[in-house]
Amino acid sequence: MNSGCTLWFTGLSGSGKSTLSQLVATRLRALGARVEVLDGDITRTLLCQGLGFSRQDREENIRRIGFVCELLSRNGVIAIAAAISPYRASRDELRKRIPNFIEIHMNCPVEVLIKRDVKGLYKKALAGEIKQFTGISDPYESPAAPELTIDSSKESIESSVARILHSLEKLQIISSAIADLPASPATAKSVTTFS
Amino acid sequence: MNSGCTLWFTGLSGSGKSTLSQLVATRLRALGARVEVLDGDITRTLLCQGLGFSRQDREENIRRIGFVCELLSRNGVIAIAAAISPYRASRDELRKRIPNFIEIHMNCPVEVLIKRDVKGLYKKALAGEIKQFTGISDPYESPAAPELTIDSSKESIESSVARILHSLEKLQIISSAIADLPASPATAKSVTTFS
Repeated sequence: MNSGCTLWFTGLSGSGKSTLSQLVATRLRALGARVEVLDGDITRTLLCQGLGFSRQDREENIRRIGFVCELLSRNGVIAIAAAISPYRASRDELRKRIPNFIEIHMNCPVEVLIKRDVKGLYKKALAGEIKQFTGISDPYESPAAPELTIDSSKESIESSVARILHSLEKLQIISSAIADLPASPATAKSVTTFS
Repeated sequence: MNSGCTLWFTGLSGSGKSTLSQLVATRLRALGARVEVLDGDITRTLLCQGLGFSRQDREENIRRIGFVCELLSRNGVIAIAAAISPYRASRDELRKRIPNFIEIHMNCPVEVLIKRDVKGLYKKALAGEIKQFTGISDPYESPAAPELTIDSSKESIESSVARILHSLEKLQIISSAIADLPASPATAKSVTTFS
């Protein structure tokens, strides 16, 4: 069985957290690893119902997702969290508690995200229709020393996935033979672009 | 690696849920199983902060603990939850979602618990100093068909632990050779009485 770890994707809305986390999960599952993805859609309903966007509520949100990642990690699972998680202190608290905590900063310039705006959220945030929107009207504190930084406006998804797998190899979470395997044709087909 | 499951202890305050869940966890860990105990003390801080004792809040509490048990169970961990979980519908919802869900009804007569009253909570509840206290001023719905029923006023802890281990053996979560092992002297010493 593989050792556990937590891949923690942090970054602004639309920066590629969910897309990349799902792809990495698919690759790892195909390699036989135990993987759980804790995405906002799941955690909002099952862990964090009723929490809003104040600093306190966002911190509580991250604490709960982190707690679940901690339990999974220490039991041999690769836990993957995709959460904006805007506050550095929250993420650093998790780093202290979770063995093999791998912080992945999705660092796409906000101008690109505003232009991309797949879900139309930035338009609404800029018009003031959505309040407390991270990167527009609410703070985002970049990680000081993340294990990986990925700018989805410059780097391909395939390259990003490869770098993540290699970081898992360095930690001996997966073997180097496994990390070097090419993506299956089906996977490769679906990973050509972000969002 | 062992298969996962969830041992769900339900019952009134003082009925032996925490004591028994800790002992079962100790026995299972000594046998090499991966085990996590989700006890009220942990979950109140890390999962369920801010929830009260209304039906809605109690249901939300159980849903969150159940979600974590589900994730652990399906990844080969023996998740042990010790929660009053007074509503049958809440527990039945978890039974549908969690593979190998083992409901253990701690069914000690309330008169015995009032007499025992280790934490002094029943006295306060009867005096009206604690509101919405399960079994006194708030409902408890017994399971219709639990996998195990344990009355800690009649059955010894050792017998209870043995029956739980045998239920895990029946489900092939642990092997029969393992379930039949005697408790270690250290364990045996600490399991002579409930509460």
